[in-house]
Amino acid sequence: MNLPERTIERLSEYRRSLLNWLSSGSTHIFSHELAKLHNITPVQVRRDIMLIGYSSVKKKGYDVKDLITEIGKIIDSEEGLNVAVLGMGNLGRAVTTYFNGKRSKMRIVATFDVDPTKIGRVISGVNCYHINDLKKIIGEKNISIGVITTPTDTANNIAEDLVVAGIKGIMNFTTIPLNVSSNVYLEEYDMITSLEKVAYFVKKHNSNVR
Amino acid sequence: MNLPERTIERLSEYRRSLLNWLSSGSTHIFSHELAKLHNITPVQVRRDIMLIGYSSVKKKGYDVKDLITEIGKIIDSEEGLNVAVLGMGNLGRAVTTYFNGKRSKMRIVATFDVDPTKIGRVISGVNCYHINDLKKIIGEKNISIGVITTPTDTANNIAEDLVVAGIKGIMNFTTIPLNVSSNVYLEEYDMITSLEKVAYFVKKHNSNVR
Repeated sequence: MNLPERTIERLSEYRRSLLNWLSSGSTHIFSHELAKLHNITPVQVRRDIMLIGYSSVKKKGYDVKDLITEIGKIIDSEEGLNVAVLGMGNLGRAVTTYFNGKRSKMRIVATFDVDPTKIGRVISGVNCYHINDLKKIIGEKNISIGVITTPTDTANNIAEDLVVAGIKGIMNFTTIPLNVSSNVYLEEYDMITSLEKVAYFVKKHNSNVR
Repeated sequence: MNLPERTIERLSEYRRSLLNWLSSGSTHIFSHELAKLHNITPVQVRRDIMLIGYSSVKKKGYDVKDLITEIGKIIDSEEGLNVAVLGMGNLGRAVTTYFNGKRSKMRIVATFDVDPTKIGRVISGVNCYHINDLKKIIGEKNISIGVITTPTDTANNIAEDLVVAGIKGIMNFTTIPLNVSSNVYLEEYDMITSLEKVAYFVKKHNSNVR
């Protein structure tokens, strides 16, 4: 089954809310409740969940625990996936701290930098290696995803090195669009774009009010 | 003109590439060149740019400088927009450093925290205020966008405070989906969702290879 990117995004978001829902003590949830949490329509929620072959119990809604499990079967890799963070400035440290400790089948198992004061140290709970050891460490630790938080001007070189080292997925935090071979999945995660979108709608709002 | 969210995202991304293109010395660009930089189809590029009423010169492509200006007219607010960052941990500092210095009509003009060692100091180039002064500072500095980088458990309270203080747009970096009134534009910027998407496609790739 090949699900569209947007569906995968929403499933991941649903799971996050379902875990909160569960920890607040509720065992079931209706599609309209889940929809409200995400500002989308109940029809959209039901369609997404139907796509993964799960359905609700009449008058009770979805079983939250079961639904979390079913989403996990679709999204998660059984054996888990190992992740490396490239560039341990504020952003790299924030990302690493953010992920580790979170429930997830993904683990950040190595970080990389060029700063001698960082190499060989444990930063945000993870060993930091020199970027020259990239290929070796990625092989040894069976890392399949790279998160790029380096300065912009080195991002494309790092991406090439990651692909050569056998990485299968890249998440790019820099403002440079990367060119990687088509068998590597690339997610561009550009903050400026997101903030510009917010700004556009704020501007629209202001001009409608006037 | 109300453009779809996805179009706004792409226009913002095009502008970023166009600025790089320009700084590398080229004055024109073809739709297929711009498309290649973003891994999308030339048809998509031409459609987006047609939507903002701009067109290419036959055999020369788009005038890069003009196109940057036209995109700016759509996306940017003429007077610029002031932004506040809430929570000055690693992530807040990374976001602040990341934005300031970037070409943009948006300016981060205040940051907020509760840590007494941060209040009153300049962090990542911007004054840090106590969260208790939120409403006052937001009014004084005419801030219309809030970026939430606080711990997850305080995010909803902060969002409510921001709305009360008159904020019109929120960018949420925490893993909690926020509930804000519908006249505030909310952009959820969840890293876990993005990374889970990468993981899903990496898993797909692995199982296809086997």
